[in-house]
Amino acid sequence: MHLQLDGRGPLHAQLTRALKTAVFAGRVSQGARLPATRQLARELGVSRNTVLAAYEQLRAEGFVDGRVGSGSYVTPPVQAPRPLHAVEAPLPAQSQFARRARVVHDHLRIPGRGIPGVRWAFQYGVPLTNPALTSAWARELAHAAAYTSPNYPASQGLPALREAVCDYLARRRGVQAEPQDVVIVDGTQQAVALTARVLLDPGDEVVLEEPHYNAMREALQIHGAQVRTVDVDRHGLQVDALPARGPKLICVTPSHQFPSGAVLSLSRRLQLLEYARQHGSWILEDDYDGEFRYDARPLAALRSLDDGDRVIYVGTFSKAMFPSLRLGYLVVPAGLRGDFVNAKWQDDFGSCGIQQAALARFIAEGGFERHLRRTWKTLKERRAALLEGLQRCSRGRLQVEDSQAGMHLVVWLQDCDAAQGEAFIARARSHGLGLYPISPYYLSPPDRAGLLLGYCGLSVAQINDAMTAFGACLDEFLDER
Amino acid sequence: MHLQLDGRGPLHAQLTRALKTAVFAGRVSQGARLPATRQLARELGVSRNTVLAAYEQLRAEGFVDGRVGSGSYVTPPVQAPRPLHAVEAPLPAQSQFARRARVVHDHLRIPGRGIPGVRWAFQYGVPLTNPALTSAWARELAHAAAYTSPNYPASQGLPALREAVCDYLARRRGVQAEPQDVVIVDGTQQAVALTARVLLDPGDEVVLEEPHYNAMREALQIHGAQVRTVDVDRHGLQVDALPARGPKLICVTPSHQFPSGAVLSLSRRLQLLEYARQHGSWILEDDYDGEFRYDARPLAALRSLDDGDRVIYVGTFSKAMFPSLRLGYLVVPAGLRGDFVNAKWQDDFGSCGIQQAALARFIAEGGFERHLRRTWKTLKERRAALLEGLQRCSRGRLQVEDSQAGMHLVVWLQDCDAAQGEAFIARARSHGLGLYPISPYYLSPPDRAGLLLGYCGLSVAQINDAMTAFGACLDEFLDER
Repeated sequence: MHLQLDGRGPLHAQLTRALKTAVFAGRVSQGARLPATRQLARELGVSRNTVLAAYEQLRAEGFVDGRVGSGSYVTPPVQAPRPLHAVEAPLPAQSQFARRARVVHDHLRIPGRGIPGVRWAFQYGVPLTNPALTSAWARELAHAAAYTSPNYPASQGLPALREAVCDYLARRRGVQAEPQDVVIVDGTQQAVALTARVLLDPGDEVVLEEPHYNAMREALQIHGAQVRTVDVDRHGLQVDALPARGPKLICVTPSHQFPSGAVLSLSRRLQLLEYARQHGSWILEDDYDGEFRYDARPLAALRSLDDGDRVIYVGTFSKAMFPSLRLGYLVVPAGLRGDFVNAKWQDDFGSCGIQQAALARFIAEGGFERHLRRTWKTLKERRAALLEGLQRCSRGRLQVEDSQAGMHLVVWLQDCDAAQGEAFIARARSHGLGLYPISPYYLSPPDRAGLLLGYCGLSVAQINDAMTAFGACLDEFLDER
Repeated sequence: MHLQLDGRGPLHAQLTRALKTAVFAGRVSQGARLPATRQLARELGVSRNTVLAAYEQLRAEGFVDGRVGSGSYVTPPVQAPRPLHAVEAPLPAQSQFARRARVVHDHLRIPGRGIPGVRWAFQYGVPLTNPALTSAWARELAHAAAYTSPNYPASQGLPALREAVCDYLARRRGVQAEPQDVVIVDGTQQAVALTARVLLDPGDEVVLEEPHYNAMREALQIHGAQVRTVDVDRHGLQVDALPARGPKLICVTPSHQFPSGAVLSLSRRLQLLEYARQHGSWILEDDYDGEFRYDARPLAALRSLDDGDRVIYVGTFSKAMFPSLRLGYLVVPAGLRGDFVNAKWQDDFGSCGIQQAALARFIAEGGFERHLRRTWKTLKERRAALLEGLQRCSRGRLQVEDSQAGMHLVVWLQDCDAAQGEAFIARARSHGLGLYPISPYYLSPPDRAGLLLGYCGLSVAQINDAMTAFGACLDEFLDER
């Protein structure tokens, strides 16, 4: 009997597979007796135990009948499966969700994509590399692994983490919340997905700021939301321009508009809350980097002014800690709490217990805020270096958006259209610069050359060097026009 | 000016909140000048720096105008928000998803709920407590934290973990998969939710085994699936009884039917694959505890026979490791790969990087399979003790379902109806026994008294003691009839 062993894994498993293939290929017919174990072992040059193990396995899986000693017979009827044709081409979309996802998702335009081969990447979303955090976090994880229950965690999140979040929110974000109002999630993206499932049916209207975070738009559109945008000016969302008929949901970034950097003014905040109350709209407040404000203490969150319990507040540890952590939280209105906890349960039963426990302790024992202060200091220096560098090479040719917070700056090239912006980015690459256009963050991008410069991944020295290259590139590019 | 500090957090934050409250309450009118900082500091008995910090914060948030020195004036118009009425009662469901979730979800019937105050809980889903695993995992996490990229992980999962999974599947589950076929998820529940979103529109038909895992049913129903069930006998799903018109999806547990314990026979496996091919149905293979088989090596998975690429294979580390880990994986047909990766991206961008890296190394370096062997040995002993105990006290009054795998056994009380079963469970509680009915795992429960006994959380000695109590309870209960 000819058997071809494939060399993957232990011998008995290889032999089992080879025998199955022989049966399916008809090389051993149904009802036929398999070779005696000793004989096959000799033929193949393997131990008899290997053959015995393979026969035993075939017997357990129903391929052969009989007992060791009296011979093993191939069980009838074993219908040969057709040969496997792995279909590599995508099939037609199988659901409306999948159909929308194929249309909407644009993985090339997602923040955080690296540009290979550049020396200085002004990539947004990369974390600040911090060896002190790495070792602190390793310690916290090891500690949490030792004492955290291995059982299913509470879907709403570990009570200790929800308490730590509430305490943090009260002190740093002006938000008064109780642990029962908090749902721990796997980052902002899951918070948005849960919000979409709890609040939206296909066809429901959602207002986004223009510009906005494109991954949030995608998550809403994939749930069938009809997205419309309302422009942002230097005081944030133009609340006056909200539609006469209230949308189901309004998504805002009041502390630090993404990506423009504007802060939603107090009067607009109150106006927005009043609009939501009158029109029965929900507000999703994405407080993605409210911690990092450089001119004053962080502004209190919109949620802290919410009287009608219309605001769903989203916080993330992707910026304050690092993105691969995948932890964040929602503060939800009491009347929707059950729906959010249920939706989280349906999605994944709850977030990883050990990570939650480690983070709870890191916050409660002060390590988290010490880390925030260090990060804040470092980011402030990098931001100053970038601003200074931009001023140095601007000579009236750049317009830097005023922004007192975060981890990025928006810069416009004066008198350049979007196509010239793309050309500038391409040129910059040859100077070793990885630059990112602002256009993905618009539903209808303006015909201007805008850049989103993330400064989290570069040191002050690197930023200084990069800005020298930036200036040279700008001179070269504009001279040629 | 009367200001009430609330004692939460730093003084300047308390003062900021108190001043806002005073403004909103109209106690400081719009356009009015706030007290001089020195004066207020004296009045309140706080340092002038505290008052300065609070005024600075109010200025940053737009509550006051003016500069230090020239006085701070309350900005007009500050519209007072209405007092916060937290609505504790649930609001009407806001989406079809939330509406279905409210109807379908029954958190009382979810496996793994503890019964307080019992001595021996035969709870399903609790992990085997294992100090060796705890310390090994703490080491792996600390190591992974030190070398894993803090950046967003790949949505599909870390390549190292996908490779380790493929290697494991080839050796232990007979499944030939490439890393590109694997999607790392946060456990079986997320795998099912993703499958529902990728494959199902509301109204689509799904066939479940009867009995089945109720959390899977919920996840499908909440996505709007029309669930029908097909009975299971001792050879697994009765494939002959599948509907003439093919459903969109068929969910099966071929290696070890949950909860009955049956193994799907080879001929039915081939018949099921042929049915799926002919009717264009997808098959979700939930291989939730295929690793733990006590009479022979684990059976090869259904996916290993799949010729038409119709099987979506789900594996989890909740059983093999522990549930709070929240990691599992899908092996998906090539033609749906993009949709699954996209759906995972939309849900949460990807699973936690450090955990994935730790698990990849734990599998690749052999720690995982060493742990499996130890667990297998322990579970085998516990299972034997439970079987022996049941036989001892049965005297023809119990029917134990034949099952050669897993972490639980199904037992029927002969000649007892479902109501008597509930009464027996209540009685058993007074004997210190935490027992669980099988009824939640049926869409239409039979009128018989069935128990699902999980033996993972009890030692052999505990099981022996528990079985003595079980026998006494059984005698007492049946004598009274």
